[in-house]
Amino acid sequence: MAYKEMIHMTWPEYAEMDDCITALCVGSVEQHGPHLPFIVDLVIPYEICCRLSEKYHLLVAPPVYYGYRSQPASGGGQGFPGTTAIDGITLINMVENILEDFYRQGKRKFLLMSGHFENTAYMSEASYLFTRNHPDAKVVIANWWELVKETTLDILFDGAFPGWEVEHASLTETSLMMYYRPELVHSDRIPDQQGKKFTPRPVIHPEPKGLVPASGILYSANGASHEIGKTMSEEIVETIGTILETEFQVSPL
Amino acid sequence: MAYKEMIHMTWPEYAEMDDCITALCVGSVEQHGPHLPFIVDLVIPYEICCRLSEKYHLLVAPPVYYGYRSQPASGGGQGFPGTTAIDGITLINMVENILEDFYRQGKRKFLLMSGHFENTAYMSEASYLFTRNHPDAKVVIANWWELVKETTLDILFDGAFPGWEVEHASLTETSLMMYYRPELVHSDRIPDQQGKKFTPRPVIHPEPKGLVPASGILYSANGASHEIGKTMSEEIVETIGTILETEFQVSPL
Amino acid sequence: MAYKEMIHMTWPEYAEMDDCITALCVGSVEQHGPHLPFIVDLVIPYEICCRLSEKYHLLVAPPVYYGYRSQPASGGGQGFPGTTAIDGITLINMVENILEDFYRQGKRKFLLMSGHFENTAYMSEASYLFTRNHPDAKVVIANWWELVKETTLDILFDGAFPGWEVEHASLTETSLMMYYRPELVHSDRIPDQQGKKFTPRPVIHPEPKGLVPASGILYSANGASHEIGKTMSEEIVETIGTILETEFQVSPL
Amino acid sequence: MAYKEMIHMTWPEYAEMDDCITALCVGSVEQHGPHLPFIVDLVIPYEICCRLSEKYHLLVAPPVYYGYRSQPASGGGQGFPGTTAIDGITLINMVENILEDFYRQGKRKFLLMSGHFENTAYMSEASYLFTRNHPDAKVVIANWWELVKETTLDILFDGAFPGWEVEHASLTETSLMMYYRPELVHSDRIPDQQGKKFTPRPVIHPEPKGLVPASGILYSANGASHEIGKTMSEEIVETIGTILETEFQVSPL
Amino acid sequence: MAYKEMIHMTWPEYAEMDDCITALCVGSVEQHGPHLPFIVDLVIPYEICCRLSEKYHLLVAPPVYYGYRSQPASGGGQGFPGTTAIDGITLINMVENILEDFYRQGKRKFLLMSGHFENTAYMSEASYLFTRNHPDAKVVIANWWELVKETTLDILFDGAFPGWEVEHASLTETSLMMYYRPELVHSDRIPDQQGKKFTPRPVIHPEPKGLVPASGILYSANGASHEIGKTMSEEIVETIGTILETEFQVSPL
Amino acid sequence: MAYKEMIHMTWPEYAEMDDCITALCVGSVEQHGPHLPFIVDLVIPYEICCRLSEKYHLLVAPPVYYGYRSQPASGGGQGFPGTTAIDGITLINMVENILEDFYRQGKRKFLLMSGHFENTAYMSEASYLFTRNHPDAKVVIANWWELVKETTLDILFDGAFPGWEVEHASLTETSLMMYYRPELVHSDRIPDQQGKKFTPRPVIHPEPKGLVPASGILYSANGASHEIGKTMSEEIVETIGTILETEFQVSPL
Repeated sequence: MAYKEMIHMTWPEYAEMDDCITALCVGSVEQHGPHLPFIVDLVIPYEICCRLSEKYHLLVAPPVYYGYRSQPASGGGQGFPGTTAIDGITLINMVENILEDFYRQGKRKFLLMSGHFENTAYMSEASYLFTRNHPDAKVVIANWWELVKETTLDILFDGAFPGWEVEHASLTETSLMMYYRPELVHSDRIPDQQGKKFTPRPVIHPEPKGLVPASGILYSANGASHEIGKTMSEEIVETIGTILETEFQVSPL
Repeated sequence: MAYKEMIHMTWPEYAEMDDCITALCVGSVEQHGPHLPFIVDLVIPYEICCRLSEKYHLLVAPPVYYGYRSQPASGGGQGFPGTTAIDGITLINMVENILEDFYRQGKRKFLLMSGHFENTAYMSEASYLFTRNHPDAKVVIANWWELVKETTLDILFDGAFPGWEVEHASLTETSLMMYYRPELVHSDRIPDQQGKKFTPRPVIHPEPKGLVPASGILYSANGASHEIGKTMSEEIVETIGTILETEFQVSPL
Repeated sequence: MAYKEMIHMTWPEYAEMDDCITALCVGSVEQHGPHLPFIVDLVIPYEICCRLSEKYHLLVAPPVYYGYRSQPASGGGQGFPGTTAIDGITLINMVENILEDFYRQGKRKFLLMSGHFENTAYMSEASYLFTRNHPDAKVVIANWWELVKETTLDILFDGAFPGWEVEHASLTETSLMMYYRPELVHSDRIPDQQGKKFTPRPVIHPEPKGLVPASGILYSANGASHEIGKTMSEEIVETIGTILETEFQVSPL
Repeated sequence: MAYKEMIHMTWPEYAEMDDCITALCVGSVEQHGPHLPFIVDLVIPYEICCRLSEKYHLLVAPPVYYGYRSQPASGGGQGFPGTTAIDGITLINMVENILEDFYRQGKRKFLLMSGHFENTAYMSEASYLFTRNHPDAKVVIANWWELVKETTLDILFDGAFPGWEVEHASLTETSLMMYYRPELVHSDRIPDQQGKKFTPRPVIHPEPKGLVPASGILYSANGASHEIGKTMSEEIVETIGTILETEFQVSPL
Repeated sequence: MAYKEMIHMTWPEYAEMDDCITALCVGSVEQHGPHLPFIVDLVIPYEICCRLSEKYHLLVAPPVYYGYRSQPASGGGQGFPGTTAIDGITLINMVENILEDFYRQGKRKFLLMSGHFENTAYMSEASYLFTRNHPDAKVVIANWWELVKETTLDILFDGAFPGWEVEHASLTETSLMMYYRPELVHSDRIPDQQGKKFTPRPVIHPEPKGLVPASGILYSANGASHEIGKTMSEEIVETIGTILETEFQVSPL
Repeated sequence: MAYKEMIHMTWPEYAEMDDCITALCVGSVEQHGPHLPFIVDLVIPYEICCRLSEKYHLLVAPPVYYGYRSQPASGGGQGFPGTTAIDGITLINMVENILEDFYRQGKRKFLLMSGHFENTAYMSEASYLFTRNHPDAKVVIANWWELVKETTLDILFDGAFPGWEVEHASLTETSLMMYYRPELVHSDRIPDQQGKKFTPRPVIHPEPKGLVPASGILYSANGASHEIGKTMSEEIVETIGTILETEFQVSPL
C-alpha cells in the first residue's frame, strides 16, 4: 500500500481520506555532522509517519522544515554554519494555526511528531492552546527517541548506550537515515570520533563556543548501518501504531 | 552543475557557500484541480530557484509549505477539501524570523519567491520589517507570473490569454508542473472545462460558496504541455537571473 | 436626505439606526502628487459611503486615516515626504477590534472600503478572523476601482485606459476629488506629465529610489474634471448599492 | 495664519515643514450626551493643536478617531449605543507605529494629545517604547483638562467645580464644542440635569448597568456657552504653547 | 481564624475552598523612599486581602511582584535605582492568563487588587478581555486609596490631606507598612521633608530628571504611625468587605 | 552575612549593589502532594539564591510565582486543584521584560533559576532574545536538579535513585523544603507510597486523567529529612558558586 502523503495528493484524493488521523511533522534546519544533511530532524519523523500511513487510516500532512533554535546540549547549538531557526512564539502560532485549519475541515485526530528535542515545549503549548479551544479534538505528540525500547538499545549498543542527549548525528540518527534516505548519507565522511557522555551544565546566553565536538557529532556515528536503522524504524512504527490504536481507538487497515 | 539545495547539504557544504544569494520559497497548501497536487505553489518557485542555483552563486534554502489563506478570486478559496493555511501574522513573523537567522550567519542578499499570490503582502511586510532593522541587507521578491513576457503569452495562448487571475490550476501552472514534476500531474483527470475570465467582485467573509468551478480549475488546463512548461521556465529563469545580476551585482557562474 | 455620518451623530441618533449596514472606511496617509492631499484614499471611499447612506439604511462609521505602507508600484512608495503608515499586524488588529466592538452592539452587516490597494490583504485577514469568531456576521469588502465598468473607462479614456496600477493621483482620483472635495484640489499644480504604463517588476526592500515620477503622479492627471468624477461616483455608488442589496438582502429607502 | 493640518496638505507642502513639532491627536468614539457628537474627545485636542499650529512651527498630523474603551467612571462606559473602541494593545501598537514612521521621516519632536482620559496609559506606553528605541526623540503628552488653571475653574464654576471626573459631556466639554464646532452642538437637547460629584467605586467587569445618568452627561451641561469655551481654549493654547517652548526650545512664529 | 494564603497551602487544602472569591494582588518593584522597601505596592493590597480572607470565604492567590512602569507623577518614575517593571502588554496578558487558569478550575468570583496606580489600566483591560470571553465570571478591582473615607483623611491629616497623587512613600503608605510589616520600615531614615502638592504637568518621554524630591518620597512621611496604619487598614477592609457582600452576594463567615 | 533580597531592600541599599550578579527566580503554582505547598518550585531556587547572595556579590531579585503549565510527566499536570499557570508566550515576554529593565539600570550578569522543569524552554528563549539585543549581557540558567552529583544521589538513595522525572514532591524536594521552610512541610501527611519509575509516553492534549498517583507525589517522599536537604543544598550552592566564578569571573566575598 502506498504512503498517504498530502504533498503528492490532489484535492479529490484528500477528500476521500475523510475522518483520518492527521500527522504533522515539524523538523529543524540544524547541522548533523559532516555526513548527514540539515533536515535529519524532519526526515526521521516524516518517514515514520509515511510508514504509519501504510498501516493506518492516516494522512501525512505537508511538513514544516524550520523549528526552534538548536541547543548546544542536544543539537550542537546555533554556532554551526547553516543552523537556522524560528522564534518559539512563531513556532507555537504556526503549529496552532495548522491544527486549527485542519480542524475547520473536520479533522479531530492529530499526531504531532518532531525529530528535534528543542521543538517539544512549543509544540506542546500549541496543542494545549488548540485543544483548549476545541476540546473535541485530540493531539498525540510522540518523540521517536523516547519510544525505542531499552532492551533494543542494549542490543544495538552492546549495553553501552551513551544516552539520548549525545545521540545527535550519532549512531541512531545515522542508522535511521541510512535506512530512510541512503542517498543523503555520506558514510565516507564519518569521522573516527568518540564523544563523551553528557554532563549536565547550565544553559548560557549568548551561547559559548566550543561546547561540542568540531564535527557537530555529539558522540559517534561509527557502526551505524542500514540494518540498525531498519530494526529501529520497525520497532518505532509498531510502538506508535499501538499508541494510535489506544488513543484514537482505530485498527490497522 | 548541481542544484544547491540546502535540504540536501551538510553543514561543511553550506559553509563553503559563504556570501551567496539565499533563496527562500514560500508555498501554499491549496487545491489545484483534480490533476495537480496541493503543493504547486511551492514546486514552481522552488524549481525555478534550483535552476537559478545552477547558474548563480545562490543557495536554495529549505522551503515553507504553508502559506496564507486561499482567496476564491485567485485560488479557489478555503472551501475546497485540503486547502490549509496559516494566519497572515504568523506568516509575517515566520518569514522575518528566517531572514533574521540567515542574517545572523552573514547572509545579506535574499531572493524571496512564492507561487501563491495571497502570500505577497505578508512576505513583503516581513521583508520591510527585516530590512528596517538591517538596512545592509537586501530582499528581492519576484512573482514568477509577473515575469512572463506578454509576447510569450500571446504565442502560448494564440493571443487569447485570459489573465493571470484565472490561471489557477490552468494552462500555465499545469505546463510548468508537467515540466518540473511530471509524476505529480494526472493529465488524464484534466476536465474538458472552459472557465470564464475574471470579473472583479467584492471580497466577502464568510466566503460564499460556488464562486469557482467545481473542479477547482479557474479557467482551463487543456492544451498544457511539457514543452510550454519548458519554454516558460527558461524564460522566467533568464528574467530573474537578469534581475539578480542587476540588484545584487553578481555574474553568472 | 442627509448623510448618516456617525462622527456627526449623538448617541440617541445612533441608537435609532438599529440593524443597519455599518460602513467602515480605511484610508492611507500617502502622497498624491503636488495637487492632491494626503488623504485621497480615505476621502473617496468615505464620500462613496456617505452617498450610499442617503439611499440605504447604512451608517458611516468614523473612518481610519492611517493604513498600510505605500508600495512604489501602486502609490509612490514610502520615500515621499509625509507618506506615513502603520504595520500590517496593527492594521489587522485595529480593523478586527472595530468590527468586534460594533458586533458587541448588535451590528451584523458590514461594508469595508478603502481607497488604498495596499490595505486590501490586511483588511481581508481582519474580516476573516472576525467572521471566523462570528459566523453570523457578514463583511463585504469593495474596492471602488474594481467596480468601474470597462465601458465607462473606455469612454472616459477614449479607449486608452492605462491600467489601474498607474492611476495613482492620476485622472480618476483627481476627478473624483474634484467632485467630492474641490477645495482640496490644486488644479493649477497639475504637471504636464505623461507617465508610462506599469511594467511588472520585483518588489525590493529597502525600497529603491527613482521608481516613480518625481511628481508622485504615476501616470497623468491632465484632463481630470468634476464631470468625470461625478459620472464615476454615480456609477460606483449604484454598483455598490446593487451589491449591498444582493449580499444583505436590503432595499433602497 | 492658517492651520497646518496635514489632512489638507500635499506632499510638497509637508516637505516644507521640515523640522517641526508633529502633533498627533487620538480621540474616542464615545457617547457625549444627547447634545454632543461621538467625536468630542478628538475635536477638542485637534482644535487645540490647530490653534497651536498658527503660533508655532507645528504640524497637525492626521488624527485617530478610535481610542480605548470608555469607563463608566469617566465616560459613561461601554453600555451606551455607539460607544466603540479598540483594544489597549492595539492602541499601544498603533501610536508607536505612527511615531516610528514620522521618525523615519526625520521628525523628533512630538506632541501627543487626547481628549479621552482612558487613552492616557496606552499613549504613554507607546511613547515610552518609542523613545526607548529612539532616545533622540521627545514626546510630550498633554491632557487639556489638566491644564486649565484652578483660578479659571473657580471663575467659570463660581467656586463649585465638581471635579473633572464628572465633567464628561458637561459644562467644559460642551462649552469648548460650542466654540470649536457649534454646528455639532444641539443646545436644545441639553437636559435639565444636575449630576452628582464622583464617588470612588471599584471597577467591575462585566460593566454594571445604571452607574451613570441615563442621558450620558455625568454632571450638567447647563450654563455652557461659546464664551466659556473661548476663554478656556485660549488659556489652554497658551499653556501648552509655553510647555512646547520649554520642552522643545522653540519660539512662537 | 487564619489567613487563607495559597502560597502556604497544599492542594487538598485548596480543594476545600471550592467556590470561594479568588483575590489576586499585583504589585510593583518601585522605590518607596529611603525607609520603605521596593514591594510596598504589593504588601499593602496583599495584607488587606489576607485580612479579608479571615472574614470571608476568600482565597489569596499567589501574588505578582512586577507591575507596570512607575510614573514620576505618582511613584517617582523609572529613574530611581531598582525601580523595575514589565511592559503594559505583558501585564495585560499575565493577568488575563491567571484569571483564565483559575476559571478553568471553576472560579468565577475575582477580587483584583494593586497598590500601584500605574497598574490600573492594564489590570482593567485584562479583566475586560477575560470577562468578554467568560461573561459568567465577575471581576472587582478595588484600589485601596480610593476607599479611605474623606472624613478619615480629614482626621488623619488635620484637614490638610495633600492629595493621593503625592502620597507615594508618604504618610499613608508608611503608616500601613508600620502596621503590616514593621520590620521592613526604617523609621530612622525618614527624612525631614515637606513635599509640595501635585501640580498637573505633561507626561514626557524620555522621562525628565529632577521631577521628584531626591528622597523618592513625594510628600512627607513624618507623623506616620502604626496606629494610623491600623485605623486605615480596618476601615479599608471593612469597606471592601461591604463591596464583596454586594457584588458577590456573600456573607461574612 | 545577610541575604541580599531585593524585596526587603530600600532603593539606597539597592544602589550600593552596583555591578552585582542579578538572580531572578521563576517558580510555578503547582501541586506538590498533600504535604508540600504549591510554591515549592519557587522556594527551592529562591533559597539557593539567598545562600549564594551570602557568598557572592549577588542580588536576589523579586521572584515570579507563576510559571508554565505543569506536565503530567514531571509535575502531575494541570488536573490537580490549584495548579495554575500562564501561557508560554507570556512567560517569555515577562522574563525578557524583567531582564531588559535590569539591563536599563546597568546590570549585565544574570542568574536565572527555576525549580520547575516546564519553565526551562521559555526562560531560555527569553534569555536568547534578550542577549541577541544586548550581546554585552550574559545569562546563566541553572537547574538545581541537574547539579546534584551522581555520587551524592547514590549515597542519598542507596544507589536506587529513581530518576529526576519522578522526583516531583518526592524525596529530594521534600528534604530541601524541610531544610528551607520546615513550617510549610506537613510530614504527617506524607503517604506511604511507592511510585514507579518513569516510562516515556506520548504527550496528549487534552491531558488524560489518571496518569499520576492520586496523591500528586510521583515517586515517594518517605525518608526525606532536614539533613538530606541540608546536604543537597550545600552541594548545589557550592556547585553554582563555582559556575558563577567561572562564567562571570567573580570571587567569593
